[in-house]
Amino acid sequence: METRDVVIGIDIGGTKTAFGFVDRQGGLLAEASIATEASQPAHQLVARIHDRIGEVRAALESKIRFVGIGIGAPNANYYRGTVEKPVNLNWGTSTNLVELFQQWYDLPVAVTNDANAAAVGELLFGAAAGMRHFIVITLGTGLGSGLVVNGELLYGHDGYAGELGHTVVDPRGRHCACGKQGCLETYVSAGGICRTVFSLLAERREASPLRAVSFQEMTSKTVFDAARTGDPIALAAFDETSRLLGMKLADAVAHTSPEAIFLCGGLAEAGELLLKPTLDYMNGFLLHIYRGRVKLLPSGMASGTGAILGAAALIWHQLDRPLSGPGFQPDAVSA
Amino acid sequence: METRDVVIGIDIGGTKTAFGFVDRQGGLLAEASIATEASQPAHQLVARIHDRIGEVRAALESKIRFVGIGIGAPNANYYRGTVEKPVNLNWGTSTNLVELFQQWYDLPVAVTNDANAAAVGELLFGAAAGMRHFIVITLGTGLGSGLVVNGELLYGHDGYAGELGHTVVDPRGRHCACGKQGCLETYVSAGGICRTVFSLLAERREASPLRAVSFQEMTSKTVFDAARTGDPIALAAFDETSRLLGMKLADAVAHTSPEAIFLCGGLAEAGELLLKPTLDYMNGFLLHIYRGRVKLLPSGMASGTGAILGAAALIWHQLDRPLSGPGFQPDAVSA
Repeated sequence: METRDVVIGIDIGGTKTAFGFVDRQGGLLAEASIATEASQPAHQLVARIHDRIGEVRAALESKIRFVGIGIGAPNANYYRGTVEKPVNLNWGTSTNLVELFQQWYDLPVAVTNDANAAAVGELLFGAAAGMRHFIVITLGTGLGSGLVVNGELLYGHDGYAGELGHTVVDPRGRHCACGKQGCLETYVSAGGICRTVFSLLAERREASPLRAVSFQEMTSKTVFDAARTGDPIALAAFDETSRLLGMKLADAVAHTSPEAIFLCGGLAEAGELLLKPTLDYMNGFLLHIYRGRVKLLPSGMASGTGAILGAAALIWHQLDRPLSGPGFQPDAVSA
Repeated sequence: METRDVVIGIDIGGTKTAFGFVDRQGGLLAEASIATEASQPAHQLVARIHDRIGEVRAALESKIRFVGIGIGAPNANYYRGTVEKPVNLNWGTSTNLVELFQQWYDLPVAVTNDANAAAVGELLFGAAAGMRHFIVITLGTGLGSGLVVNGELLYGHDGYAGELGHTVVDPRGRHCACGKQGCLETYVSAGGICRTVFSLLAERREASPLRAVSFQEMTSKTVFDAARTGDPIALAAFDETSRLLGMKLADAVAHTSPEAIFLCGGLAEAGELLLKPTLDYMNGFLLHIYRGRVKLLPSGMASGTGAILGAAALIWHQLDRPLSGPGFQPDAVSA
């Protein structure tokens, strides 16, 4: 039996950590998940992941060889290999995940945040194949973004490029988890559209089933379901979300001039209800030289396994290139 | 006598076209200028530049060899070598400047817009030496920008990356020459600060020497001179300009995470009056991971010859690298 080279793609979330064995073509040979146990230190999680990986590997019928480990994690810094001050994990100021994994595996290990992993996943296994300039926007609890320029993920000077969720929509606007006011993600995200619904319920008088739902119970799925039945509040919330997203995506185009922008994550599952008006608004806000030339597309990754494949793509992409390539040369590792 | 390799740096403006012979160290061996004659076709300008270059070369005492031509021009597209629909030149839809120059010179020729030329000038000959991620903002009639990522100018998918002057400050705001409303450059530029003065004169009641100046007569120099004498309207105009620039520079940082941002051009000559409050506002708008870590600096290029040196730097930078380098691979030459 032939031995297949695979990487381990790991997606660390606040509640669940999922992983899978992924070959160079994006084939997922096996997957599993464990509880993250956010209150425990990171080294315990890494030890438990290692144990579970061993079990899954032992149960596998095909012969495989691990060639690398790619990790998507919150507040990850690719240059330093660290997770820094994660909000939902009790890991302290800085945890070097690369070193922790290399205590168990003599393999290349890379870590980045989930939006960056989604972007490189789109590049290798998704709808961005062959594109050299594109942006991936993840619309979950917050708004994440991964920017690809010249065929490489953009990390910038300190490893934190691509935080579009914290660009400014309104300096006196909604309070953000980051401590600022008016950040894009307070308006455009699964949480943001719920806040917009409550703002609209306060301003307007239309009857709506959303008036029966508490703030705690409201989800973007509730809003989406109401919009599909023609509820005016829900439709207005999608319109306002699209307007602000279109405006800030136009700003993003004026920075990096991408060929396409991909929307993924929970709120993006609203599909055309979000995509079409966002594209129209974006074109309205775009400078004429870009207008009508930037594609706005759904992700080409499956929503369930996309995070694992993205994490795996991170390390496959690195293994594909000379390690000293210009796109990946850190210039501020000690910053 | 030793023969020195030089490039010809050419800065084409609506009124004047300046050029100079620039060696690899940024030494300017000679410079001259001619009238652009904006109503004439481009090929006549190129022929006149060629004639004048010949005269300047003949008068030169040192022996030189031309190794390339770099051009900064309005609405230039690096990928295509063209100037497209320039507002202040009667050149039509698209003019291939590279081809026009190569009819006279068997040399590498490259063209880009003035802000991109300023950025690569800063990289090779200015204050950005050794930096891999930075942004140059030119504050003239409008607001231009050049983004450097991974040590290369960022052109994006279609050659037009870095149009921060047309990011949105206020979708219902000031009318812009581009046809949109509320673009950053309608607020932050030499023209923008004058408009802000008139808005403040309308809103407020303080006595001010600026009340004696007509809209046509007002320049950013008038505003700067008034601000230095403590005029409250002029100071408020600088404060508002700094606030909006700081806000949008914070957005720019959230895209590309630069090490530094350089301000150059006429309005930037206000120095600390603009730099200091802009830095304070920018830090206030920045996400905590960037706060206090991004430098805001004056240009390291001399204001008189910066445009020529920037244009020259464009082609020196290209000659320094393998021509197929990842930063310069066009992916949309026919777009």
